[in-house]
Amino acid sequence: MDYSSKILENAVDEVSQLPGIGKRTALRLVLHLLKQPISQTVNLSEALLKLRTEVKFCSSCNNISDMEICEICANPKRDKGLVCVVEDIRDVMAIENTAQYQGLYHVLGGKISPMEGIGPQDLSITPLIKKVRNGTVRELIFALSSTMEGDTTNFYIFKQLQDLDVVTSTIARGIAVGDELEYADEVTLGRSILNRVPFENAIKTN
Amino acid sequence: MDYSSKILENAVDEVSQLPGIGKRTALRLVLHLLKQPISQTVNLSEALLKLRTEVKFCSSCNNISDMEICEICANPKRDKGLVCVVEDIRDVMAIENTAQYQGLYHVLGGKISPMEGIGPQDLSITPLIKKVRNGTVRELIFALSSTMEGDTTNFYIFKQLQDLDVVTSTIARGIAVGDELEYADEVTLGRSILNRVPFENAIKTN
Repeated sequence: MDYSSKILENAVDEVSQLPGIGKRTALRLVLHLLKQPISQTVNLSEALLKLRTEVKFCSSCNNISDMEICEICANPKRDKGLVCVVEDIRDVMAIENTAQYQGLYHVLGGKISPMEGIGPQDLSITPLIKKVRNGTVRELIFALSSTMEGDTTNFYIFKQLQDLDVVTSTIARGIAVGDELEYADEVTLGRSILNRVPFENAIKTN
Repeated sequence: MDYSSKILENAVDEVSQLPGIGKRTALRLVLHLLKQPISQTVNLSEALLKLRTEVKFCSSCNNISDMEICEICANPKRDKGLVCVVEDIRDVMAIENTAQYQGLYHVLGGKISPMEGIGPQDLSITPLIKKVRNGTVRELIFALSSTMEGDTTNFYIFKQLQDLDVVTSTIARGIAVGDELEYADEVTLGRSILNRVPFENAIKTN
């Protein structure tokens, strides 16, 4: 495409490198910025630069943080014996939004995926094992996605923990609250029958 | 949502001010930048800032440009007697991509829209009339969108030109090349029958 301006072309090229944003969308976004007050572009640029240069990852759980230790790990009210293993920072946010969990997290930063060339050494697995070995962790909750990569990662960590004194669990899979049975997939429905819970428990959590 | 980092929250807020980008998408984009080399964020920020501070609008046609006069207006091979009136810079790019047009452009910067509070004084209409009054323009081609706002803008400019010696035309509306008649809307199909062209002409442009 002919942008008639090298500066515009360069801006469109940079924006279109973001995931899910093509050249057309990038052009729309960039032309929008041109119509807005200059302060918006300045704020946007500064916020992105500041994020990339100043944000830290918690030295304990690998969660995103402004400090050396994240707010969750630093909170004395949190149960330090309970650690939920998640893939991504977004999973921490999702679980935090439920307000149902009072333990800590451990962010792996991805899952083992030979197809994408991600091995165990690329993830934050060694610090997790070390944390368990130190003996403060009572239970590990695996909350990775139930894909082949997620299951592989679960199993890899599980194997490393075998000679250690720690309980491992995984989040419950089943029919979502409010969903109708007839539209559920067979695997989920099958699992939800096999892993049925006593009716008294179901009443308590409602 | 709890971002557990003020710097992250600020970056997400700024990105989500772009049109069509919500908080979730903004978070995805921002976390993607965190995983990429720092140079990508630096390049992106600099490109946006440079665009907003250094890009110019052509003093003749209002098109985006790195110079005082844009490449199209400065090109001696272009027909300076033919001016195509468009709403937006993107329309210039779209027409340039056809490689069928050898005249100049005039970018209005929008269309008259009382609903959005855009009046004739907010658009680059006065410079257009002045350009025509100077006598170099032989023909004006209206290429605004065929909405109520576009038609209003066309008509407003047309009225201002009545005592001036200039031919006005509008781009042809009709069934798109390759489209099937049965799926076309009635207005377009009706217009394409009323404004039919001699068969010899149709062969020539194919």
